[in-house]
Amino acid sequence: MTGPVPRGRRGAGADTRSDILAAARSSFADRGFAGTTIRAVAASAGVDPALVHHFYGTKDDLFLAALELPVDPRTVMAGVVEGDPATLGPRLLRAFLGVWDDPETRLPLVALVRAGLTGEPGRTILETALKRIVFAFLTGAVELDDAERRVSLVASQMLGLIGARYLLRLEPIASMPAEEVVAWLGPTVQRYLTAPTP
Amino acid sequence: MTGPVPRGRRGAGADTRSDILAAARSSFADRGFAGTTIRAVAASAGVDPALVHHFYGTKDDLFLAALELPVDPRTVMAGVVEGDPATLGPRLLRAFLGVWDDPETRLPLVALVRAGLTGEPGRTILETALKRIVFAFLTGAVELDDAERRVSLVASQMLGLIGARYLLRLEPIASMPAEEVVAWLGPTVQRYLTAPTP
Repeated sequence: MTGPVPRGRRGAGADTRSDILAAARSSFADRGFAGTTIRAVAASAGVDPALVHHFYGTKDDLFLAALELPVDPRTVMAGVVEGDPATLGPRLLRAFLGVWDDPETRLPLVALVRAGLTGEPGRTILETALKRIVFAFLTGAVELDDAERRVSLVASQMLGLIGARYLLRLEPIASMPAEEVVAWLGPTVQRYLTAPTP
Repeated sequence: MTGPVPRGRRGAGADTRSDILAAARSSFADRGFAGTTIRAVAASAGVDPALVHHFYGTKDDLFLAALELPVDPRTVMAGVVEGDPATLGPRLLRAFLGVWDDPETRLPLVALVRAGLTGEPGRTILETALKRIVFAFLTGAVELDDAERRVSLVASQMLGLIGARYLLRLEPIASMPAEEVVAWLGPTVQRYLTAPTP
């Protein structure tokens, strides 16, 4: 940003949107999702809270915008959970690989996951992103009492796929064709989601 | 280390062991496992190569010593692969949880995995540790043509367990009793190791 530091409340100027986003990003990193309010973000950006809502919608929407993801995970997940629950595992794997096997969409996600596995504040940000954006769709799709438990088991397989295939680049899983990954890991995810508790 | 910097070759003084280890750690980090030689480590520490062998054995032994792990993974893995291959998955999980659920043994391993997932040189060091120390036991235990493929699939589940349970601390898998983790993930690891290729 060039020009003087804003003083007091402002209208919808050229930099207002990006000022709000910068204030939001800083607040989510410092105070977490629960500790961030639209009101405080607005005050920090020097604008009216109504303008934050106008530009970015709900706090969830604002959080998602602050992440600057290369794809909208809600669109991806809405496609995944639609259809037969008996094939949810393979559908999740295919959608996941579609996003992660493309270097252009993978790189920003790699940064998010690396920061999340390294410590705070990245951990809370990644946890919030997973719980509010990804897991919420799966727990809605799995009609079982222990949906959270099942989804956290799924997370253990998906995080490990990220770790082995994209971060550590362990062969041969790093170069395995996507359909082979689906054939091996799809049944695992399916079992975690819908099989009887062992 | 206090005192003057060593010049030329030295005998087995008080600091010699730790000098060799420091030289080895630096070489493995800078040049990787393949690029490190006992001869070069010895030269860097100002000792005779025979002394390196005398103190630390083979290059594998020296690498393991340089990692300063809280447990010897070869002892753990030797116990895991002994017994019925049909229950190898649950045995691996139980041994893994025995080490990782104890904060004292977990902390140095967390550092190793974090560095490995973050980039070089940690990535090569973790990859070498896994391949030469952990995977070697499993590929020996699985008498199948595609043992490397199967072991890399196992790694994807185990790395994800580390990520979800210990790094991200995602609930409820973070607080799940060990035997429940074994009941859910044991069959996954077993399938990756011994089930027919899907």
